[in-house]
This record gives sequence, structure tokens and C-alpha cells, in this order.
Amino acid sequence: MSITVVSTIAELKALSADLLARDVRGEASGRTPGTLGLVPTMGALHRGHAELAKTALGENAVVVVSVFVNPLQFGDATDLARYPRTTEADLALLDEAGVDIMFAPSAQEMYPGGEPGVRVTAGELGELYEGASRPGHFDGALTVVAKLLHVGRPDTGLAPAGQDGRHAYRAYFGQKDAQQLALVRRMVADLNFPVDIVAVPTVRDEDGLALSSRNRFLSGEERDSALVLSRALRLLKRRALAHEPLDIASVEALVHSAPGVDLDYLEVVHPQTLAVRAENCQDTPFTGQALALIAAKVGPVRLIDNQPLG
Amino acid sequence: MSITVVSTIAELKALSADLLARDVRGEASGRTPGTLGLVPTMGALHRGHAELAKTALGENAVVVVSVFVNPLQFGDATDLARYPRTTEADLALLDEAGVDIMFAPSAQEMYPGGEPGVRVTAGELGELYEGASRPGHFDGALTVVAKLLHVGRPDTGLAPAGQDGRHAYRAYFGQKDAQQLALVRRMVADLNFPVDIVAVPTVRDEDGLALSSRNRFLSGEERDSALVLSRALRLLKRRALAHEPLDIASVEALVHSAPGVDLDYLEVVHPQTLAVRAENCQDTPFTGQALALIAAKVGPVRLIDNQPLG
Repeated sequence: MSITVVSTIAELKALSADLLARDVRGEASGRTPGTLGLVPTMGALHRGHAELAKTALGENAVVVVSVFVNPLQFGDATDLARYPRTTEADLALLDEAGVDIMFAPSAQEMYPGGEPGVRVTAGELGELYEGASRPGHFDGALTVVAKLLHVGRPDTGLAPAGQDGRHAYRAYFGQKDAQQLALVRRMVADLNFPVDIVAVPTVRDEDGLALSSRNRFLSGEERDSALVLSRALRLLKRRALAHEPLDIASVEALVHSAPGVDLDYLEVVHPQTLAVRAENCQDTPFTGQALALIAAKVGPVRLIDNQPLG
Repeated sequence: MSITVVSTIAELKALSADLLARDVRGEASGRTPGTLGLVPTMGALHRGHAELAKTALGENAVVVVSVFVNPLQFGDATDLARYPRTTEADLALLDEAGVDIMFAPSAQEMYPGGEPGVRVTAGELGELYEGASRPGHFDGALTVVAKLLHVGRPDTGLAPAGQDGRHAYRAYFGQKDAQQLALVRRMVADLNFPVDIVAVPTVRDEDGLALSSRNRFLSGEERDSALVLSRALRLLKRRALAHEPLDIASVEALVHSAPGVDLDYLEVVHPQTLAVRAENCQDTPFTGQALALIAAKVGPVRLIDNQPLG
């Protein structure tokens, strides 16, 4: 096994600076020396996470994957307790992928004084969509991402920013969590974090279901029903590509027709601001760029998915 | 003039990295190569700020002073508009002190998208004392400090943390703004900013008045009245040193006796958490560590001061 597991911030900082200094991969690998990629995760890793790691490995001299189930972003203790934890399998997946460091801190290491007094707050965008049903979720998520962006950045050994303006420090997030990605990008811009945020496309099972750590809680029947989410998104994409009216109401009806599926929202939004796009959605031909967002409860499991349109 | 004025983040990052790389002062100066001190200010500089710069210059290879009147931390536009701006005098003071870089960005440079959607929030401590009369003030202050800590940190050229655990990147704040200092320390700890926060003791005029950019708005009579603030704090310190009861009520009475002084609060608090110390303040001999905080309106000017006890 060539991956190293560290559990303290001090060890992480020391080891990543050391790996950068030793340039373990070398220029022959095609990766720019002095570059480091951070992949923040909550564990329960699947092929979607492997894709994040693979993307990071393709363009960085050193790759760190953090595994931390962040209590701050869970509304209730039950949801936190039942979030899957699969540490051994996670480690095997990351080692197989070629990741250099797995950072797996305790809650005590991340929050030594208990819940933090000073936090990051997501603002209005954090209260929409997922935020509407999970109050405080994005404040908790952004707070831990801010912490991880700080602890994941080595103090020495990073190269200067490139001529293309890219930082030598990059963090990787899945397009699957579109609202989280939009908010992380906004946080980095609004608070001037010295990092590039890289989005990685959603990975799907062959039947179209977006990979999620929560899919394991679906029964066979529920899983069949859950396919209506990606089917709805594909239908919107087809209409958008054909410049037809999106007719969202008919797509909502399709979702409602699936047994055991309780639709929370289906919205067509601006791809960066996530503001709802009112125009072109019902009766007029669709033009321009947009993102379709969907969330539904399928049996006991809340699922989200999204699809760029146009 | 040897100071350089920059107004963009890109220029600041490039210049500070360049100065670190060239090690302009050299080891003969006694300053550790690869160290950088940032002094965030809102301009209208006085000897208190000069003391911040002097402290930073005593222990860093490169010193940056930022001058930015942050609209986000002013509750109303009038207060923002009347905040003193003395750019030429500020530049002369910083050059005389030997500061390397004055960073004077526009509001557009700091907030290119207008008011930021994602912010730092101060939590409960931000609602006490100064926060009680200035809602949102500390959220705005912490948000701009978070941004400045990011933009003031050069991407390359910093030395590794020292064996004493001190970062090579340090930021300097006055003890005068005790609550701001406590909140900045908490933000740096809670969000893992890679920076050392250095507190610099309050500078006073010979008569005891704590220096403040707002003192210039005091008439001669108001200034005489304002001396009761530091007199009250000295009285508390004498009682604490003598292990007498602090008898805060009698000190409040002293403040009320000064003409034109409208006391907002006088509290004896824990020096880090700023939680109110109930014990030892009235009838029993004072022991332990504490900080006395005072705020009052003197004529049209709101003044604050504080004093470590014990």
C-alpha cells in the first residue's frame, strides 16, 4: 500500500509539504511539480469519488483526499448517525486510485473547541432548494470546506500561479451536488481563497441513476422508482437541445407518476447563480444556458440530481 | 520614498512574493527571511497604527499595511461617509515607519460583485457589547479580515513554520479593539487560517485617552469629558491589583458624573471569551484574570476602551 493515512492537521501539513519537496512523481509524469489537489469527501466512497480522485491525479503532483463526516452540516443527530461509514473500503479505493494521502481527522481534531463560534454563512442561495429542507446545511458545509481548504494547503512547496492564472492548489467537487459546488465557488470568490475549484461531471450507473452514498439505502423497488429522476432530466435535456418548450409541468407529472416518489422540487436555473429561469420553460422554444435541478424523496431516501441544459 | 502603493490584489501578490524572494532586508537586519506581516487598517492612521507597523517591522522581512474603509462593517451610510479619509498623511506615516507596501484597494477591487453572498458570521460573541449597538458590524469586519488574510498572504516565498510553531505569516491588530481582536482570534482558530495573530497594546495620549481615528471629532470640552473612560479603567485596575472588590456600580457612577458622557456599557469579562465575569466584581476581593470593557457616547462620538486586570 502506497497511500499514507494521517489524522492530524500537523501531520497532513508536514507530509504534503514533504511530498511536494521530494517531487515524488517527477516531471516525467506530465504533472506540474508544486501542484496539489484536495478532494474533500464524507467517505462512503463510490465511483463518483474515484472520478474526483482520478481527475485530481491527472493534473497534480500530490493528491490528498479528506474523509470527514462533518457533524455541522447535519440537521439532526439521526441523519448524522445513519450516514454510512466504510473506512476500510474507502482506504482500499483511494490506494487503488493512486492517491497519496488520506486525511481522516476526528471531530475533536476538526472542532477542538466544540461547535465553532465563528462560521461561514451561505447567504440567500443557501436557503433555496436543498437549503429550504435542510436549514443551516450549507452554512455547516461551507464552514468545513473553508477549514479543509486551509488545512489542505501546504505551507511550503507550492509553485507560483501559472501563466493561465491557475493556482497550484486545486480542490475538486462533484457536479452532482450542484448547489454545494455553486456555493463553494461563490465562497472562494467572495472570500478570496487562493485555490482553483474544479468541477467533475456526475458519474451514473448504467441505468442512469446518479451515484450517491445514500443509494445503498434504496430497496430494489425504490431504486426502480428513483430512475424517474434521471429520466425527467434527460427529457428536459432533449427538449432543450431541440429548442422545444421545456413544459416543466408535464415533467413534474411524469415524476409524480412513479410509485413512492415524493417530488420536492424540479427547477430550471441559471448555471452559476442558480436563480430560477422563468423564461423559455413552458410555452416558448428553449434557448440559452441553464441547469435543471431535481430533488425527491424515494421511500425513506432523499435524492438529488441535476443536468446542464443547452 | 521607499514604500510602494498598490491597489490591486494581483499587484500585491506579485510584489510581496518578489520582495520575499529578493530578501530586501537581509539576515543582518535580524528579521527572519521569508516572514511577512500584514497590518489591516481603515486608514486615518495615528500613532496607534504606527505602533502596529513598528511591531510588524521588528519581526518580519516584509510588511504590508492595508488601507481600506470597509463598507460592509458600517451600519448606515452616514457613518461610512463621515469616516475620516487621510490618504496622503497615511502614506507619509507608513513611509516614515519603513513599511514596504501600502495596499489601498477600491471597493470595486474588494467587492467586484457588490455585496458578497457568502460571508463570515461572528456568532453569539458578535452580538454582545459593540455588536449590540452595531448589528452586523462584526460579520462585516470578519468578512473583510478573512478576505485580507487571503489576499495578503503571498503564494510563494514564505518560510516554513518555525520550531516554536509560529507561522511565517502574521497579522497585527490593536488591543484597543478588544472585541474585534477576540473575534479575529476565534475566526483564525475556528476556520484554521494559516496565520499568527499578534496583539499590540493600546497607545494613549499623555492624558490617558486611547488613540482613535474618531477622536478628531471631539470638541475640547468633549475631549476633557472623554478622559473619564480611561480614568474609570485605571480605577478598576488599581482595585484589581490591590485585591479589593471592583465595585463596578461606583465606577459607573463616576462615568455618569462626567458632563456629556452617555455610558453604554462597563463590563468585566473573561480575557479570551469575553464572557461577563460575575464573581469578584462587587463585594469580594478581586482575583484572577479579566478585561474591563467600556463604551460611551461623548457628545456625537462613540468611544471604546479596555484594560486588562489582574
